[in-house]
Amino acid sequence: MRLTQLSDYSLRVLMYLGARPDRLATIQEIADAYGISQNHLMKVVHRLAQHGFVETVRGRGGGLRLRGAAGDIRIGDVVRAVEEDFRIVECFGSGDTCRITDVCRLKRILNLALKAFLTTLDEWTLADLVQKPKALVEILAID
Amino acid sequence: MRLTQLSDYSLRVLMYLGARPDRLATIQEIADAYGISQNHLMKVVHRLAQHGFVETVRGRGGGLRLRGAAGDIRIGDVVRAVEEDFRIVECFGSGDTCRITDVCRLKRILNLALKAFLTTLDEWTLADLVQKPKALVEILAID
Repeated sequence: MRLTQLSDYSLRVLMYLGARPDRLATIQEIADAYGISQNHLMKVVHRLAQHGFVETVRGRGGGLRLRGAAGDIRIGDVVRAVEEDFRIVECFGSGDTCRITDVCRLKRILNLALKAFLTTLDEWTLADLVQKPKALVEILAID
Repeated sequence: MRLTQLSDYSLRVLMYLGARPDRLATIQEIADAYGISQNHLMKVVHRLAQHGFVETVRGRGGGLRLRGAAGDIRIGDVVRAVEEDFRIVECFGSGDTCRITDVCRLKRILNLALKAFLTTLDEWTLADLVQKPKALVEILAID
């Protein structure tokens, strides 16, 4: 069982921004700090902006920052918003070929389990992830 | 977020066996019934036998059947046993390159969410999945 890289990287970007909410960050510096591809992060940031988690300031000296307080950003909401694929098993998708889908109770049960997963994540916010901003700032070498 | 095909197919095999617990089934007939590859199912059945969910009877007229009562097989236990990959995000795996792993609280939170997912599945057993054995027997054309 895995989340996609989109969820993983989204949370990393938010943690980066949450560690220093007072300044603007560029995609380039976040990519460098984590040692991941800038191209990957473009899509991630676009998705985060689309869903209102971050805002971008254009132009020279521009960059991105959290749109709200870290304490208002629930982890479950981030995963719900950015995760592209909640196709836990085949019958969750559009190309389902499973022959027993019509009489099967598994989908309902897996849906309840998925709900429990996300509800648990909702018990925490980005503020819980950046409780030690100094350690993050140091490791990520944020100016 | 997805489970691997191994979990999906394992549950399908168990449902097949649970629909007619009184008879032995062959991998070939289960593969045919679901329209999936016999090769895929070999690995699945091996895993299920390894973990004590099914037993195989060798020889002419042999096949496989549930090892215990359907009501004793918890869905969460099946997924825990057969799912090869609970690497929710990168830092769950051995090749973790994330730079903030040491100070990050996300792993703990995701682990709690995973636990909630599996605990929810434990509220149901295979018996809940084969509550309508006649419908399954009909759709899967089990003799």
